[in-house]
Amino acid sequence: MTSPGATLRAIRERKPLVHNITNYVVMNETANAILALGALPVMAHAREEVEQMVGLASALVLNIGTLSPQWIEAMLAAGAAAEIPIVLDPVGAGATEFRTETAHRILDTVNVTVLRGNPGEVATLVGAHAEVRGVESITAGLDPAELARTAAQRLGVVASVTGPVDHVSDGERVLAVANGHQLLATVTGTGCMSSALTGCFLAAKSDAPLEAAAEALAAFGVAAEDAASGAGGPGTFHARLYDALYALDPATLGERVRITEL
Amino acid sequence: MTSPGATLRAIRERKPLVHNITNYVVMNETANAILALGALPVMAHAREEVEQMVGLASALVLNIGTLSPQWIEAMLAAGAAAEIPIVLDPVGAGATEFRTETAHRILDTVNVTVLRGNPGEVATLVGAHAEVRGVESITAGLDPAELARTAAQRLGVVASVTGPVDHVSDGERVLAVANGHQLLATVTGTGCMSSALTGCFLAAKSDAPLEAAAEALAAFGVAAEDAASGAGGPGTFHARLYDALYALDPATLGERVRITEL
Amino acid sequence: MTSPGATLRAIRERKPLVHNITNYVVMNETANAILALGALPVMAHAREEVEQMVGLASALVLNIGTLSPQWIEAMLAAGAAAEIPIVLDPVGAGATEFRTETAHRILDTVNVTVLRGNPGEVATLVGAHAEVRGVESITAGLDPAELARTAAQRLGVVASVTGPVDHVSDGERVLAVANGHQLLATVTGTGCMSSALTGCFLAAKSDAPLEAAAEALAAFGVAAEDAASGAGGPGTFHARLYDALYALDPATLGERVRITEL
Repeated sequence: MTSPGATLRAIRERKPLVHNITNYVVMNETANAILALGALPVMAHAREEVEQMVGLASALVLNIGTLSPQWIEAMLAAGAAAEIPIVLDPVGAGATEFRTETAHRILDTVNVTVLRGNPGEVATLVGAHAEVRGVESITAGLDPAELARTAAQRLGVVASVTGPVDHVSDGERVLAVANGHQLLATVTGTGCMSSALTGCFLAAKSDAPLEAAAEALAAFGVAAEDAASGAGGPGTFHARLYDALYALDPATLGERVRITEL
Repeated sequence: MTSPGATLRAIRERKPLVHNITNYVVMNETANAILALGALPVMAHAREEVEQMVGLASALVLNIGTLSPQWIEAMLAAGAAAEIPIVLDPVGAGATEFRTETAHRILDTVNVTVLRGNPGEVATLVGAHAEVRGVESITAGLDPAELARTAAQRLGVVASVTGPVDHVSDGERVLAVANGHQLLATVTGTGCMSSALTGCFLAAKSDAPLEAAAEALAAFGVAAEDAASGAGGPGTFHARLYDALYALDPATLGERVRITEL
Repeated sequence: MTSPGATLRAIRERKPLVHNITNYVVMNETANAILALGALPVMAHAREEVEQMVGLASALVLNIGTLSPQWIEAMLAAGAAAEIPIVLDPVGAGATEFRTETAHRILDTVNVTVLRGNPGEVATLVGAHAEVRGVESITAGLDPAELARTAAQRLGVVASVTGPVDHVSDGERVLAVANGHQLLATVTGTGCMSSALTGCFLAAKSDAPLEAAAEALAAFGVAAEDAASGAGGPGTFHARLYDALYALDPATLGERVRITEL
């Protein structure tokens, strides 16, 4: 059962350290989202330190948005060493073979807890038809709820497929999350932020990754709704998004989330 | 003939993918500028994927702001594979030999469509006297209109020289762009943003690179004028700049641009 | 004697170039803080150019927030070539051996002028007990004033230990700086910004590094106080922080700083 307010309260009390090996584009923004929510971010990618750093952390977030071979090695090493929940964000899988293969390599060798991607990326990884343009998903061959369920079953993960409505599945159950705002699509890295926040929720609720993943997306969506109110466009929305994450109220979050089981 | 409103409308309809191999400082900001304008950004620098990624794109933007040898190889490989318009931003050319030589190497081996730089950088590349301090242009030995024309002729590009008034030349004609705001100089990466937006305009108007480059600078300048109105300083101006790019109106853009042929 | 208004005026008149070899997370933000204050930032990390770039600069800022071996080599090379004040920000020292060893390696081989860190990082480097979680300092075994004095003596630097109250020492004198705002802790990279601004103040006051370091923290703290007034949370505070740095008034800064000698 989802209890986003309680999970958020736990995050703010425990301040879990979330280790990110992520892309250059969103490092600052995902760190700020994690901080604004109430957890502690750390970015570390050196092969020399990732195992030790992940040993201090409560969740690991791997994001392939700007790849290079050394970073892949670091992701695999951190993933192998991690005894904590792991989120994989397969940014741009389907756009290039290098990204698709890297996402598969991580899924094959790392114990990924939650795969958080857009429909095109996730469809690519289950072998369904998808059209991906750069890092944007254009179309996916499957209904998103079905896609989430199929991905969870085939890849052995909780699949978290984001879109106008998000769908999260453990292979049996499917939770739909209807929070969010269209301005999210006008700011780069909001998908990456949702993966980072998924790491925070998993850190505080590691025994229920399906629920934790859905709660993370719902909380982020509620914050986006708050940020959009009064925003003048993508730039002021972006600044207000951190304000809204910081202001999320555990006492009312449960009433505001729109999570339904399909 | 310039028709910035029509070009902007085309960008928003076609949503061209713009592939950036750019510096670490401005990755997020240039991606957000491209998104706010209405195109799709992708950042990818791995030698293993740049050729495939550039094959999906409608423009390529190369920016040498934070160089290393692997990135130069990726830029050259992407540039060689690209059959699309290419923008080069020679950040810091003139400050170090490494940057000057790299800019020349790209110009010599890649089919650069538009060179977008500040007067010091462009003057360095044509062998004129210039004083560059870090990535800031202090003085250039030539009048900017003459500098743009000379650079275009000698380097075989459309030269886009930005400053209080921008000058864009194909070696024969020179267009001056008088839009913009002094707050642009207080935010890092606004030059890089103008290069990224030049890529967007080229993607939608590849048959007229002189006009596309001037329209890009004019549109960015109009957005800066809008963003400055009500800004409290560099930080709120920066946030409002994305709002203003997003709000640019194709119907009125033509009346607001101040492009004159010299 | 501290004279922050005069130093700020000198920064804005001379516009010193500050060379940063820093982490990916804060490159944009520290560059913008330097620009907003009135100096000129440059980011350059290639082994091929750091010596030439540092030769153009008036201060060098080394920050180990996202390390890799090549970057360490660049920091050491730039540090060896520099004949200007050098700031070291030992981000995450104490969290991993790689970071602790790298910070020591820089301190041992580079003529560091100011070490700017949080209590856990600085305590780690003097061998005192510290608890560091990722890049956050949880506890340090020493009183911060004593910690700053001890670090300065043992490491041969001006030690600048930031916290709710900052303590800066040259090993004999200790200056306490009481400016600042709690929202600084909700935005990533504000510690890194304080190191970058320390570089700016050192560039303009290289003969008095103790005072320059304290003035930098006080000026940043005053800006944070201004930014917090009217901010809706971390995101709008962050944007307003650049506005506030830009608006710092040399004529009144001296009255607003709260620097006391212990």
